[in-house]
Parts: sequence; C-alpha cells; structure tokens
Amino acid sequence: MRAMTRWTLPPDRIPSAWFNVAPHLPEPVDPPLHPGTREPVGPADLAPLFPMELIGQEVSTAPWIDVPGEVLDILRLWRPTPLVRAERLERVLGTPARIYFKDESGSPSGSHKTNTAVPQAFYNAKEGITRLTTETGAGQWGTALSYAAAQYGLELQVYMVRASYEQKPYRRIAMETWGGSVVPSPVDEPGHPGSLGAAISDAVRDCVGREDTHYALGSVLNHVLLHQTVIGLEAKEQLELAGERLPDVVLASCGGGSNLGGITFPFVPDEGVRLLAVEPLSCPTLTRGRFEYDFGDVAGLTPLMPMYTLGHDFVPPSIHAGGLRYHGDSPLVSALVKAGRMEAVAYPQGKVFEAAVQFATVEGKIPAPECAHAIRAAIDEALAAKETGEEKVILFNYSGHGFLDLSAYDDHNNGRLPEEQG
Amino acid sequence: MRAMTRWTLPPDRIPSAWFNVAPHLPEPVDPPLHPGTREPVGPADLAPLFPMELIGQEVSTAPWIDVPGEVLDILRLWRPTPLVRAERLERVLGTPARIYFKDESGSPSGSHKTNTAVPQAFYNAKEGITRLTTETGAGQWGTALSYAAAQYGLELQVYMVRASYEQKPYRRIAMETWGGSVVPSPVDEPGHPGSLGAAISDAVRDCVGREDTHYALGSVLNHVLLHQTVIGLEAKEQLELAGERLPDVVLASCGGGSNLGGITFPFVPDEGVRLLAVEPLSCPTLTRGRFEYDFGDVAGLTPLMPMYTLGHDFVPPSIHAGGLRYHGDSPLVSALVKAGRMEAVAYPQGKVFEAAVQFATVEGKIPAPECAHAIRAAIDEALAAKETGEEKVILFNYSGHGFLDLSAYDDHNNGRLPEEQG
Repeated sequence: MRAMTRWTLPPDRIPSAWFNVAPHLPEPVDPPLHPGTREPVGPADLAPLFPMELIGQEVSTAPWIDVPGEVLDILRLWRPTPLVRAERLERVLGTPARIYFKDESGSPSGSHKTNTAVPQAFYNAKEGITRLTTETGAGQWGTALSYAAAQYGLELQVYMVRASYEQKPYRRIAMETWGGSVVPSPVDEPGHPGSLGAAISDAVRDCVGREDTHYALGSVLNHVLLHQTVIGLEAKEQLELAGERLPDVVLASCGGGSNLGGITFPFVPDEGVRLLAVEPLSCPTLTRGRFEYDFGDVAGLTPLMPMYTLGHDFVPPSIHAGGLRYHGDSPLVSALVKAGRMEAVAYPQGKVFEAAVQFATVEGKIPAPECAHAIRAAIDEALAAKETGEEKVILFNYSGHGFLDLSAYDDHNNGRLPEEQG
Repeated sequence: MRAMTRWTLPPDRIPSAWFNVAPHLPEPVDPPLHPGTREPVGPADLAPLFPMELIGQEVSTAPWIDVPGEVLDILRLWRPTPLVRAERLERVLGTPARIYFKDESGSPSGSHKTNTAVPQAFYNAKEGITRLTTETGAGQWGTALSYAAAQYGLELQVYMVRASYEQKPYRRIAMETWGGSVVPSPVDEPGHPGSLGAAISDAVRDCVGREDTHYALGSVLNHVLLHQTVIGLEAKEQLELAGERLPDVVLASCGGGSNLGGITFPFVPDEGVRLLAVEPLSCPTLTRGRFEYDFGDVAGLTPLMPMYTLGHDFVPPSIHAGGLRYHGDSPLVSALVKAGRMEAVAYPQGKVFEAAVQFATVEGKIPAPECAHAIRAAIDEALAAKETGEEKVILFNYSGHGFLDLSAYDDHNNGRLPEEQG
C-alpha cells in the first residue's frame, strides 16, 4: 500500500467557531461609507439589507465567533471536507513540491459557497425574514443560496449575470429545482452581458422597501469571508494529520475573495506562510486595480468600501469564470494585499484551461473555471520548485467542480475560447 | 449536537477483496452460449473481447477475489464513500423508518461506474491492450471509463445511445475532456434514438479483429457486478458504526444491474434482509420480461445469456434515465429474482422525478434520473412503514448525482416530461 493521499475527518470534528482575521490585520480596515452622505455607515444603515447578527459579525473584532448548532447540523452533511495530496499531479510535473488541495466540491451545490449560504439563510430566517434577493455570476452562489433557502423555507429571487445565464443553463435549472426564481441581469437592458456589479444593483433594488425581504451577498463582505474560514481551519488540522507542519504557500482563486479568504485567513498569523490570490487577466482587480473607496455595485446603491477596484462601471469580458468577473474585491483581502501580507497574480483564460485539463486527466476531477485559476497557480508554484529543487508544500483550495460548466470545456477542447488581452 | 447522520471511513479501510455472490446463489447460473454454435462459451471465445483476468473472474466460484494494489491506489482517491442517514427526509415523511443511503456520487465521474471502470482498464493495460471500445447510455459508464482509460494511457472509443447524446451534451464533453472519443449510436442509422443493445453491437463490431483493442462493458456481466460489491461491503461496516444490525430492505435502481448488485450482493447470505430492484415502467425487464436465453445486444453479436429480457430488439422510449434503458438484465440478478431471493418493482418517470425533487430539497442532493428510481422506492418503503408503524431500516444506493442530467429536471420543472404507458 502506498502512502495515504487523502485525509478525512469525522463529522463531529467540524470547527465549531469561525476564525476572525480582523484582529490579525497589520492595520484596521477603514469603515464603509454611506453612498449618499459619505459618512461611515452604522448598523441602522445596513438593517434594511441584513439581519443584525450578520451586521454584528461584519464589524466584530472578536477573535472567534461561534457557529450556531443549527448551522453545524447542516454543514455536517458534507463537512469536514477532505484534504487531498495531488500526488499524481506531482509525478507528472516531476516536482519535489508536495501539492495539497482542500476539496470543497462535495457540498450540495458543488462549491464552497454553501458554507456561507447556510448561516446567512439561518440568521435571516431567525429574524423573521421570509424572502431573500441576491445576485449570481457563474451561478455557484445562486445555487448554494437556493439550497440554503430551501432548508429554512425562504423564498429566493436570483439576478443572474446575463452572460452566465445564457452560457450555463444547468446552473439556472439547479436553482429552480431547489425552488429559487431566476432572471437575467441587468433586468432593464436585455442586450447587455451584465456584470456582478449590475446584478447586485438589481438585487438591492428588489430588496429595499420590502419588510419581508433581505439581500444576501456571496462574497466581498467580512461576514461572508468569516463563514468560509472553516476551510482553512480544517485544512490546518488535516495538514498535521498528513505529517506537515505549515505550508510554504496557500493560494486560491479570487473574484470577490471568499474562497481565498476562507483558506488563507487562518494562516495570516503564521508569518512564514506565503498567501497568494489568483485572478483572471481579463478582470485584474488586485494586480492592476487602484486601492480606493468605491461602490460595490454599478448603480452606486451600496456603501463605498476601501478596496482594490477597476471602477464600479467596469464591465469585464464574458470569460467562462463568471464568478471572478467583479470590479472590486473584499476589503479584508485588499487590506492584506496593500500591506504586503498577500500577493496576487493574474492568468489568461487559455492557460487556466490547460491546467484544468491536465488536472482533470491525472487527478480525475474536472474543476470549475474559477477554481482552475488556483490549479494554474499551484502548478506554476510546483514547477518553480522543480527549478530550485525545493521541497515546497503548496496548499490550494479546490473551490468547486465544473460539472455545471462543461460548455466552457467544450469551447476549450474545440479551440473556441476567445482571444484575450495580455 | 444532534446524533450523527454521516459515517465516513478513512482511505485505508477500503475493502481489499471483492465479494463473489456465485457461491451464495440458490442454484448455479447456466452458462452463456456462443451466438453461432449455441454451445457454452469457453475462455477462448471471450478472449478477443476481454483480458484473461476478467474472464477468470466471470466464471469464478471463489468466495472472495483480491483487489489489486494498483486498483486500490486509485479507488482510495474517493473511497470508502460515506453512508448517510436521510434524517431530514424521514422527518418530512413522518416515518418511523430509518433511511440510509450509500453515497457513490463523489467519484471522479459522479457515479458508482468508476468502481469497475478502474479495474477493467487496469487488467486490459496489464495484458498489453492499448485501445478500448464501449457503449454508454446516459453517459455515466462512458465518463467513468474515459477517466479510467486516462489513468492507464488507453485510447477509448465510446458509442453513445443517440437519444442521450442529444439530451446530455455535458456527458459527451466530460468524456472528451478525459480524452475519450464519442460518437452517437447506432452509427449506421442517423435518425434512430438508439438503445444500449444497439450501442453494444457498435462497440463489439469495432473491437472484433483488432489485436490492440478490447471491449469493456459497464454492467450485466458477473465481473462488473463483482467490482461493485465494495459498495455493499462498506455499507455493512458503516451500518454497524451507525448502531444498526442489518437493514430490513436493501434496494437500488436496476438497468443492467451493476449498482444493484454492488449494494445487495453482500447481503444475499443474510436471509432476513429483503432485496429490491427498482426499474422504469417504460423498460420493465424484471417485472414484465421473460426469463430465457437472449443476446446482450441488438445485432446478436454477443453470447446468449440466461436472463429476464424484453427481447433483444426491444427499443425502449427515450426516458431521461438512459442508463436503465436495457432490454435484458444481469444473469446474477435475474437468477436471484427467479429464485425469489430478490423482488422487483417498476415506476413511471413522473413519480420518479417527484421523489427526486423532494429528496433534493430536503437532503440537498440532486440525483441522476437512474438513481432517483431508488429514491422513489425508498420513500414508498418508508411510507409503508408509516402505515404499519414499523421502525424499518431501509438502505439504498445513491448511485450518482444529476448535475449532468439537469435538462431532465428542466423538463420536469416545466411540465414537459412526456406521458408514459402505465
């Protein structure tokens, strides 16, 4: 028998508290500003959108925040997720590096998004809310929230970026199967490919003024990234089981920053660990954006946040990694990049799909196009280690499977991926 | 914290031997007959199609057959699979029954088919074969074998039933992403919806006479069902962890019989355990077929096997559960049904999708249409237990996810499923 290559944990070993990165930041993040007054927003400003428990988490500086038992009961249906050593990939690359990935693809909707969808639906239901609105890019967030809303009997209206709505009918069908209602966005510009920023505007407009309705966001905000830290917490424990001390580098794809924050934040206090964000070259927020206050949406309805941004009216090309087509970025991730604690790299779509197919062939798992960005970077880190002969330990987040994104692979396999700016 | 509802086992607890049901049958199965001479076939007759190791397993009466270490190394990437208690479904049904399912959806291709694809590819590669041909219905088998062929550098030609080829482009893309080549079948009748029997004929024709090529079958044959017994073996161990002695009933969907055999065969010696096959009303092989010698394919190229059959020229309607559209059935399953050791029930497609959506909503998992047949029967068993007040233990096989079959759900959600004969 070969050495083990997969580490599982029993359902009762799920983390019972989320890790709050706020106390570990080099300096505190500046507060969001009201879109009208440009004054710092208070809880009352956010109450029309979010339940008070989430608003409290958004501003909390407590180092740990308990996961409610009712949420644990649902997360335990698929968590802890496995940590896998990509030993076959290592062999094909001929690298001395050891490559580990955390496999988030086994959740009901097939990605990490369910980790925050469940607590968000729970807190809203607990506050008496009966209806949620949201946006979705590739549809990973929309499917996750549709599943979570069904668990608490909440009605759900999803605004799906039109480019994805047309490319990915299977994600729409999954949302509808769980009871969600889905329309393409922008709702008032039928020919427009849309963007996450525009879909957020649509979802916020549908929420404001309705007492039964709240809005839910799948990334960017502090409470969302907080809920994702179960990924990194479990990975830390599983790396120990695998006989590793700490990884040399932890990396993940980055759109709004939630799967990246989820796997990297628990490693922020570990100074020797490099943290790396991977984004698409066609929407290079961290690598080519400016750090400044900007709106989270196209229409300027949300608070202004201090973050790297390409401008809230930036409309990225219709790449297949729809979940990474966001003009801005999580303020927490932005703060870490600005402070030099986290690095960022950008890749063109073609290079990303080459890595995805190589990974699918040797490891057997077909990744979502978003997730494939992390695989590209992990392979490049492993090839760099081959050059230097370094026995580097690489940890990346396998954020979701690509079974609902196969039209993208059809385009890649048949040479139909559009050319990209370099 | 609630009671546990999911039981995992570490990768080193995978069964290291397959369970052979042959010594446990009420009476021996009659041998297959040569299609030309109608005499019992010998190993030499099968050698153009299969490697000798698989031919040996086909006729073995040894109670256990060792799994090669090289096969275990790959199976361990996703096995042992979890055993899950569908506690939320139980609550919604208000049943005193305890419903468990074995979750085979976490394999690379998303179904149980990979359990036999890997050893079949391994034994062929070991014998120096460099190319395989096969048929596929819904595409679960074709995707599994594409993945497995890639692990051993084998070329693969897949003949996909045309109805599925057109309904399920995502399965074709997945096969192509793993390097398989896919054409719709029957190859010489472009307007024909096809059937598994016709696709087998195409695949066998492509194999015969080429020394570099063997044929691989995803169900029906003894060695295929043998490889699937890891499912039932693991489930038995996990039920003990869950504090159960033996289940009252074990059930699975049945097309050719492989996932059914996989979960039920290890329970054949346990006399008190009911075994139940679930099939589509539109292709009711076990419930309305005749037990007789028949060909495995439309063209009469394969040996004749003693089995329940609707006639080898039967063309079932184009239901979404393409994997269950087979005119015949595994001789081992047929023998158990004929001897009264196993029962069979048939359901119309609409009832099956109702169960699938109920399961998806409460348990979060969207099943493949084939797998949904098992869910329908499990729910009906649980509702029967509610009538009688019996604390029955139900075990079913969750054979695969439906992420690649969502067009079927779109039809169901929008009332477009065709009417069926009753």
